[in-house]
Amino acid sequence: MQPNVTRPSQRSFDQGREVRLIRHFTKHAEGAVLACFGDTQVLCTASVNAGVPRWLKGQGQGWITAEYGMLPRATHTRSDREASRGKQGGRTLEIQRLIGRALRAAVDLKALGEFTITIDCDVIQADGGTRTAAITGGCVALVDALRSLQRDRKITQDPLKQLVSAISVGMYQGQAVLDLDYAEDANCDTDMNVVMTETGGFIEVQGTAEGAPYVREEMNAMLDLAAQGCEFLVNAQRQALREP
Amino acid sequence: MQPNVTRPSQRSFDQGREVRLIRHFTKHAEGAVLACFGDTQVLCTASVNAGVPRWLKGQGQGWITAEYGMLPRATHTRSDREASRGKQGGRTLEIQRLIGRALRAAVDLKALGEFTITIDCDVIQADGGTRTAAITGGCVALVDALRSLQRDRKITQDPLKQLVSAISVGMYQGQAVLDLDYAEDANCDTDMNVVMTETGGFIEVQGTAEGAPYVREEMNAMLDLAAQGCEFLVNAQRQALREP
Amino acid sequence: MQPNVTRPSQRSFDQGREVRLIRHFTKHAEGAVLACFGDTQVLCTASVNAGVPRWLKGQGQGWITAEYGMLPRATHTRSDREASRGKQGGRTLEIQRLIGRALRAAVDLKALGEFTITIDCDVIQADGGTRTAAITGGCVALVDALRSLQRDRKITQDPLKQLVSAISVGMYQGQAVLDLDYAEDANCDTDMNVVMTETGGFIEVQGTAEGAPYVREEMNAMLDLAAQGCEFLVNAQRQALREP
Amino acid sequence: MQPNVTRPSQRSFDQGREVRLIRHFTKHAEGAVLACFGDTQVLCTASVNAGVPRWLKGQGQGWITAEYGMLPRATHTRSDREASRGKQGGRTLEIQRLIGRALRAAVDLKALGEFTITIDCDVIQADGGTRTAAITGGCVALVDALRSLQRDRKITQDPLKQLVSAISVGMYQGQAVLDLDYAEDANCDTDMNVVMTETGGFIEVQGTAEGAPYVREEMNAMLDLAAQGCEFLVNAQRQALREP
Amino acid sequence: MQPNVTRPSQRSFDQGREVRLIRHFTKHAEGAVLACFGDTQVLCTASVNAGVPRWLKGQGQGWITAEYGMLPRATHTRSDREASRGKQGGRTLEIQRLIGRALRAAVDLKALGEFTITIDCDVIQADGGTRTAAITGGCVALVDALRSLQRDRKITQDPLKQLVSAISVGMYQGQAVLDLDYAEDANCDTDMNVVMTETGGFIEVQGTAEGAPYVREEMNAMLDLAAQGCEFLVNAQRQALREP
Amino acid sequence: MQPNVTRPSQRSFDQGREVRLIRHFTKHAEGAVLACFGDTQVLCTASVNAGVPRWLKGQGQGWITAEYGMLPRATHTRSDREASRGKQGGRTLEIQRLIGRALRAAVDLKALGEFTITIDCDVIQADGGTRTAAITGGCVALVDALRSLQRDRKITQDPLKQLVSAISVGMYQGQAVLDLDYAEDANCDTDMNVVMTETGGFIEVQGTAEGAPYVREEMNAMLDLAAQGCEFLVNAQRQALREP
Repeated sequence: MQPNVTRPSQRSFDQGREVRLIRHFTKHAEGAVLACFGDTQVLCTASVNAGVPRWLKGQGQGWITAEYGMLPRATHTRSDREASRGKQGGRTLEIQRLIGRALRAAVDLKALGEFTITIDCDVIQADGGTRTAAITGGCVALVDALRSLQRDRKITQDPLKQLVSAISVGMYQGQAVLDLDYAEDANCDTDMNVVMTETGGFIEVQGTAEGAPYVREEMNAMLDLAAQGCEFLVNAQRQALREP
Repeated sequence: MQPNVTRPSQRSFDQGREVRLIRHFTKHAEGAVLACFGDTQVLCTASVNAGVPRWLKGQGQGWITAEYGMLPRATHTRSDREASRGKQGGRTLEIQRLIGRALRAAVDLKALGEFTITIDCDVIQADGGTRTAAITGGCVALVDALRSLQRDRKITQDPLKQLVSAISVGMYQGQAVLDLDYAEDANCDTDMNVVMTETGGFIEVQGTAEGAPYVREEMNAMLDLAAQGCEFLVNAQRQALREP
Repeated sequence: MQPNVTRPSQRSFDQGREVRLIRHFTKHAEGAVLACFGDTQVLCTASVNAGVPRWLKGQGQGWITAEYGMLPRATHTRSDREASRGKQGGRTLEIQRLIGRALRAAVDLKALGEFTITIDCDVIQADGGTRTAAITGGCVALVDALRSLQRDRKITQDPLKQLVSAISVGMYQGQAVLDLDYAEDANCDTDMNVVMTETGGFIEVQGTAEGAPYVREEMNAMLDLAAQGCEFLVNAQRQALREP
Repeated sequence: MQPNVTRPSQRSFDQGREVRLIRHFTKHAEGAVLACFGDTQVLCTASVNAGVPRWLKGQGQGWITAEYGMLPRATHTRSDREASRGKQGGRTLEIQRLIGRALRAAVDLKALGEFTITIDCDVIQADGGTRTAAITGGCVALVDALRSLQRDRKITQDPLKQLVSAISVGMYQGQAVLDLDYAEDANCDTDMNVVMTETGGFIEVQGTAEGAPYVREEMNAMLDLAAQGCEFLVNAQRQALREP
Repeated sequence: MQPNVTRPSQRSFDQGREVRLIRHFTKHAEGAVLACFGDTQVLCTASVNAGVPRWLKGQGQGWITAEYGMLPRATHTRSDREASRGKQGGRTLEIQRLIGRALRAAVDLKALGEFTITIDCDVIQADGGTRTAAITGGCVALVDALRSLQRDRKITQDPLKQLVSAISVGMYQGQAVLDLDYAEDANCDTDMNVVMTETGGFIEVQGTAEGAPYVREEMNAMLDLAAQGCEFLVNAQRQALREP
Repeated sequence: MQPNVTRPSQRSFDQGREVRLIRHFTKHAEGAVLACFGDTQVLCTASVNAGVPRWLKGQGQGWITAEYGMLPRATHTRSDREASRGKQGGRTLEIQRLIGRALRAAVDLKALGEFTITIDCDVIQADGGTRTAAITGGCVALVDALRSLQRDRKITQDPLKQLVSAISVGMYQGQAVLDLDYAEDANCDTDMNVVMTETGGFIEVQGTAEGAPYVREEMNAMLDLAAQGCEFLVNAQRQALREP
C-alpha cells in the first residue's frame, strides 16, 4: 500500500468530497432533498401514496420503492433519454433496485402500514458516486415523508428503524481510496459500493474488479474506509434532519 | 372585460411572474440554463454534436431538436416515470415538437453547418407554463451553445437570427390575463401559448378553449398581452446573455 | 397583400375545395362518414361503448375520445405502418389529441351519461388538411352516434351542444389563403388550423410559421378566412345530416 | 353430405359472394385495388421502392412483402388500434406472412431486380374472408406495380409468373361450402383457406377444425370447391386487369 | 413419383426419425416432457393455474394456451433473444397459436372447469419439425397435468377427449417424404404440417409451396404419409403415458 | 457462530451441492455446457461471431457478452415469459451484466482479436444459485469457444487468462453457509455471490442483507467459505475441460 499516491482530485486517500443534503429543495413532494457529493447532484424526492402493490395487499404492511434516472446531459456527453428510447437500461434498473433494497432496510414496513413511499432519484449533474448520493439523500427524503405521515396522523408510530447511507471506495494505483469521483472511477482497478446502517452493519456490499482482481487484504482496506465514510455521512444526515 | 378580476395569484391581469434565467446551472453542457417563471423551474441544456440526422445528410445545414421531460414529482401528485412506462406520452411529444419548432426559428440552419444541437428541457418543479419557460430558457441555452461553437472555431459565422421567447395567456373569468400559473390554468376558459421573435413576429400561436369558446375580441386581447409579455422576456434573455 | 397571387390549385385565395361528407360509408359503426376535402379522404367512424375510462367513473358523465391513423400509402411515398413500428408518432398523437378536444366541445358530457364515444379518423388518401377533414367529418359521425343512442332510448336528451368544424388557412406568397392542399402546404410560410363552433366561436387556433414569422395583420386576414370557411363547412354538415 | 343445407347467406353451397376488384381506388400508390367479397372490403396498395432488405443485398433479386391491418371499426365491435397498443397481434402477423408468401409465388424475383414491392392490405369493412380478399386484390395491385416498373423502363422483362388468388371453404352443418361470410365462419366446424395459381396448383392450404375434426372425404370436398372458387377469382382478376 | 429418391437423412421416404418422449424431465411443472424427434429437442411443460382469462370468466369452462420459444443457440447460427429484442416474432406467434389450437382440440374444456393450463414449448436444439415435436410432446405434458388435477381431486372427470399429435411431410425432389429434418426442409418444394387426432381426424393442415406449386395428387400422397406418421406418434404417446 | 445449525438441505455448513459440468450438451454451439449445482440446471452456450459491437470497432480487441433467461416453468410457479411481456426484467438484466463482467475477466480481449463471444445462460430448472452456475458453466463453454477459434486457426494465441467461477454464501440462522439452495436462500439473512479467479482473486462480491444487517466478522466467515467453494469449482472446471 502506498498511502502517498496522488489522487486526481488531490484529496488524501481517506478524504471524501464535500457533502450537502439540502432539504425542501422542491415544494410538492413529502420529502425533497438535493444530495451533493462534490459536483455530483442528485434530486431525491419521496412521494407517499395510500395503498400497496397488488402482491402485498392485505398483509398490513407498507412498501418502499425507488426509481433512478439521469437527465440526458448530466454527463460529459449527452446520453439518450430513456423515455424516448422506450426502456430503462440495465444500469438504471440495477441502481434503482439497489436503492430500493437499501432504503427498505431503514424502515419497519409493518409500522408503516399500507402506504407506499416512492423515492425518485434524478441525477442533475454526474461526477461519480450517483448511487451513493441517491441512497444517502433518499434516506433523508424518506425520513421527511415518514414525518409528514406522522404529522398528518396517518400513522401513529415512527417506522424508522435506522438511518442508512452509502459510499464508494476503490483501489486506485494500489491504494484504497474513499469516495471516487468520475476521473478516479474511470481509472481505478476496483470499484466498491457499500451501504451501511448508522450502527455500522452492512446492508449491501458490491465490489467489482474492473482491472486486476483484488485480494482479501485490499478488500479489508476498502471496507475500513467505507465504514469511516458512512459514519461521516450519517452525521451529515442527522445534521440535515435537525433543521426545521 | 373586467380588468378588476382578482387572480388566484393576486397578480394584476397584465403582470407576469418573476422570471429568472440562470446560466451555467450545470457544468457539462454547452448551454445550461435554469429557467424560472415563478415556482416553475425548467432546466434547459443545449448539447452540440457533430453530424446531422440521416435525412438531412449532405445538405450542408444543421439541425436543432428538443426533448422535454418532467421529473415524476415535479407536480402535486407523482406521475409515472415515462422511461419506466416505456413511452413518452402525447403531451410530452406535443410539447417537445413545439419547443423544437420554436427554437429552429431562432437559427439560420445553413450558417450552423452540419451540427446538431439538442435542447433538453427537464421540469424540476411545475406550476404552470412549463413549455413557455422551456422555450424562453432553451433559447438562452441555445445561444450559449452557438457561442461555444464560435469560440472553438468550429463555425465562423453567428447562426443566431433572432431571440425567441414564449408566454401563456388565457381568459380567466372573462378577463384576458398574462402568464397563467397552475391554479389559474386549471380554472381558466382558454389557454393560449404564444411564441414570438424579438421583433414581435409570431412563430406559433396555440389557443384552446377549455370551457366556453372564445371570440375574436378576446383573442385580440390575449394576443396584445402576449406581445407585451414576450417583450419583457426578450429583455430578460438579453440581460442574462450580457453576463459572462 | 396581393389577392391576385396564383395558387398551385388555381383556386382563388378564399376558395375552399369541394367538400363531401358521405354518411353510412361502412355498415358496422354507429356513425361512419367519409369526409372528402378535394382529394383528401378521411374515414371517420364513431363507436359507442357503455362505460367511461377509470378516472371518470362515478361522475355521471360521458367521454369522447379520438384516434387518428394514416394508411401507409395514403401519401406520395409510403410511410411506415405505426402498428409495425410499435408506436404512434408525435404527429399522430398531436392530431388525435386535437380531434378529441375539438369534438368534446360539441357535446354536453353530462347529458351523454356514462357512455364513451370513440371517433376513429383514418386517412385513406392524403392531400393536405387531413386533421380538418377529420374534425369536420368526425363531428357528423358523432351526431349519428348520438342519434343512435337516442333511438335506442339509452339516453333521453340530445347531448349535442353545437356543431364543430375545422379548416386550414395559411400565408402563401404573402397572401392569406383558405384550405391548403398538399402542394400549397409544402410551400406556404404559415400554416394555421382553426376549429370553430357553428356560432363562430373559437375552439382551437394553431398557427405555425414555417418560414418567416407572421404579423398581426396577417393573423387577422387568416382568421377572417377561417371564419368564412367554417361557416361553409357547417352548412355542409347540416346538409349531410338532413339526409336520412 | 347434405347439399341442401341452408346457409345463413342463403347462397347455395358452391356459390361465392359477388366479387369486385376496383383498380386505381386511390391515387398515390403504384397499384391500388379495393377488393370486395360481398360486404368485405379490403384496400390493397402496392408500393415500389428501389433496393431490397439488407439480407438480400447483392443477390440481384427483388422482394415482395405484405402488411395487413384492420381499421378499428371494420368489425361489429370496435377492436383496439394496434398502433396504439404498441404491437401487431398474432393474427395480424400470421395473415400478413401468408399474404407475403402467396404473392411472392406470383413473381419471378430475379426478373424483378433489386426492387421491393410492399403490399398493404387494410380492411375497411370486415365480413369474413379478409385474407382471401387481400391476396386476390393484392395480386391485382401487384400486377399494376409491375406494369408501372415496365412503363418507367426500370425493368425490361415482365416478372409476373402467374396470377394467384385465394378463397375460403369450410364445413357448415356437415356440408362443404364456398366463401364463408362472418356469420358462417363463426358457426362452421372447419375453416380452410386455399391459395392457388391460375393453373390450379396449390400455393398454400390452411385448414383448421374449429369444432369436430374433419376427415379425408370432407377435405376432398372442400378442396374441390376451392379449386372452383379460385378459377372464378382468376377470371375476375383478368377481367379487372383488362381495363385501362 | 420416384420412391427411390435419396433423402439427405438417408431415411426411406416413409421413415420418421427416432422419437423419444421423456416425461418428468424437470421437477416443478405439473407436466414436463422432453420431446425428441431425432436431433430436435423441445422441452414441453404444462402449468396449471386456477382461474381463466377475463373474457372466459363465468362460463364454467377452462382454457388451454401455449407459448413457444427457441433458445438463442438452438440453431446453427445464433438468433437474437426475443426477450431482448422486446417482442416475439411473427414465426413464434404463428407457431404458438397453432400449438394452442391443436391442444385445445384434445380437451373437453367444460370438463376441465375454471383452470388454465399453459403449455410452454422451448426448443433446446433445433433440427427441423420443432412445432410438430412441440404438439406431440405438449400433449403428453398436458395429460400429466390433467392427471395431477384429478389426483388432487380438483376435478372429478377426465377432460381428455383424444390424444393429438403432429408430423411434417413434404415434397422432396418430386417425392412425398415423412418428417423433414432441417436439411430436408431447407431444400424441399413443399412443407406441410399435419395435426391429427388419435382416431385419424384432421385438426389442422398447413401446407406451403416453397418452390413449385403442388398438385392434388401430391397433396394426397403427403396426407397419406402424415396419417401413417401420426399413427406412429400416438403409439409413442401411449407408450410414454403407460409408464409411472 | 453455531457450526451445528441444521440446514434445510441437511448439508454441513461448508458443503456445496453436487456439481456437474456436462460439455457438448447441444450440438450447434461452439461451447455448450449444462451446469448443474444440485437441482439447478443452466444450459450455457458460447457463440462466436466475427466482428465487435460498433463502439469497439477498430480497436483491435474482442468482446464477451452474456444473456440470461429462465424458462417460464423453471421455477415452482410459472413466471411470465419475458419475450411475451416485451422486456427483460431488472433481475434478468442485473444477472446478465454480472455474468458478462465475470467472464470478461477470464479473457485477454486483445488476444481474442475482433471476435464477439456471446454466452447464453438459460435456466432449465431453478433451485437457487442460478447465476453462480451460469458463471461457472459459462466459463467452461467460453473455453470451448476459444479452443474452437484456435483449432480453426482464426486466432493464434490462447486468450484465456484464468478460469473464473462463482459461488453463493449466506448467513443462515447465524451461521455462514456455502452454496444456498432455494429453500435456504428464501430463509437466510444475507445472500452473497462471490466471483473468483482460479488464483483466488476477487472479481466481484455482491452481498445483500435480506434480514438483519451483517457485521464484519460474518462477512469474513462468508468470504472464507466462498474461497473454499470456488477452489472446488475450479477443480471441477479443470476436470471437465480435460475430457475430449
